Amino acid sequence: MDERAALRLLSDELAAAGDDAAAVDGLVVTTDMLHERTDFPAGTSRYTAGWRAVGASLSDVAAMGADATAAVAAYAAPSFDRGELLDFVRGARDVCERVDAEYVGGDLDGHEEFTVSTTAIGRTDDPVPRSGARPGDLVCVTGTFGRSAAALRLFERGDAERANDLFRFDPRVATGRALAPHATALMDSSDGLARSLHQLAEASDCGFAIESESVPIADAVCEVAANDDQALELATTFGEDFELVATVPDRSVAAVRNATDVSLSVIGTVRDADEGERVTMDGESLPDRGYTHG
Amino acid sequence: MDERAALRLLSDELAAAGDDAAAVDGLVVTTDMLHERTDFPAGTSRYTAGWRAVGASLSDVAAMGADATAAVAAYAAPSFDRGELLDFVRGARDVCERVDAEYVGGDLDGHEEFTVSTTAIGRTDDPVPRSGARPGDLVCVTGTFGRSAAALRLFERGDAERANDLFRFDPRVATGRALAPHATALMDSSDGLARSLHQLAEASDCGFAIESESVPIADAVCEVAANDDQALELATTFGEDFELVATVPDRSVAAVRNATDVSLSVIGTVRDADEGERVTMDGESLPDRGYTHG
Repeated sequence: MDERAALRLLSDELAAAGDDAAAVDGLVVTTDMLHERTDFPAGTSRYTAGWRAVGASLSDVAAMGADATAAVAAYAAPSFDRGELLDFVRGARDVCERVDAEYVGGDLDGHEEFTVSTTAIGRTDDPVPRSGARPGDLVCVTGTFGRSAAALRLFERGDAERANDLFRFDPRVATGRALAPHATALMDSSDGLARSLHQLAEASDCGFAIESESVPIADAVCEVAANDDQALELATTFGEDFELVATVPDRSVAAVRNATDVSLSVIGTVRDADEGERVTMDGESLPDRGYTHG
Repeated sequence: MDERAALRLLSDELAAAGDDAAAVDGLVVTTDMLHERTDFPAGTSRYTAGWRAVGASLSDVAAMGADATAAVAAYAAPSFDRGELLDFVRGARDVCERVDAEYVGGDLDGHEEFTVSTTAIGRTDDPVPRSGARPGDLVCVTGTFGRSAAALRLFERGDAERANDLFRFDPRVATGRALAPHATALMDSSDGLARSLHQLAEASDCGFAIESESVPIADAVCEVAANDDQALELATTFGEDFELVATVPDRSVAAVRNATDVSLSVIGTVRDADEGERVTMDGESLPDRGYTHG
């Protein structure tokens, strides 16, 4: 059974599973495990690792439209180097500060491969699901796409400083709060924009028509990509950008934009499920491709 | 830097660290990571693994005197077997049901070694710290000690069924709630009774005088131990029993006992720090030995 099949099995077994975070009793809770080999390219600083690992969980809290309350991390490594451990903790704490959450520590553990497991907790009485998109809604995204794709190329080229900068990101908690009263469906783009669009459209049983020229592409991608087509490909399928993907009624877009400092781009519209392909870009099928987290 | 030194470093760095769980904003949060090689002996069923991993975090919630709200787990394995995954989830869910918490799922992750990271969340406005024991208080423990030590021997002997039974445990959430209004210091015994006594006494800056004949030893230990001395040794140092260790004013012990179905044994008294050794058993120094979690 592959990971997606296993996730479907769990989603059948557990009522609270199947969204970015589980909602229970006014809280949202989400957990992730990251490994050096699959998630932290050579050159990733422990500060960036702490920021990114905890940030990924905070992004899941944002994707529920919740306030972020606290985060913890279990840090497993073959040995504990004082400087590395403090850098990790500072990265974790700094990303929490960005979203007004408290980093409250966690567990330490001897393990061959550097592995981090993070959990974030948020509060909302009204979590935004993935399943409420309606035909006529607009498909909106925060920020820009492709930063992590560009970072990976820069790590490969040995430009670790710029790569680390690009690899850190602001979890969109405040924008998630601004979207919450209006969005009909919401998730984050951790598995890539294309896959997120498919997941939202499937959960809502509708279709999305996306316009490529409206997809906001990070400047850094254009530097590392051979041409515009490759830049668009990286921006839509690489993933790990931790932006929000939402569907919002046309009349509410201005209100959301007024309530957040982060750019909100309208990249397409929601249509009926029976009008052809699940997700199209410029009228052609957009494949459900992206990053399957290892 | 070994794990204990690293934990001290973190405890200096993070205000919320250093107790069984972090307290933030009316919540307590705790996270643990467990690995097949160090935490799940050959013969441990996935049902027991799910129960035990989530139970360990719920025990940390109990050790704060909090109500248990929810738990999540990240499940990492080389492949996902449908039966194993469902067994794990059922064990996780069943231990949550025992303490009126909700198991809300988590993350799946490809990884060479079976590894589980669990987080539990509880609620209390008044967490019980490790640091409030006062001379004259009584040292109390829940349940019996040595179940996990006995389970390990039975796994080694191939008696997996009895071993699995012993390896599951009831997190003492209800008893933690009963202790909370009265206990001056509280923690769980996951690192062994002897180490827990040292940690409580150090955090409270006092000494403990323990009587060995009052330490409740699980029947199963007596079966696997060569003699009474070895049984006492296993019960006090093996750890992983997830009982509560508390200090309680003499006048309050009856009230705690009335408020819980779980047995509460008085095993000693709290005395001034300057009266010799930090922790004594039958008048002799009880070494700070126990299980350092890998």
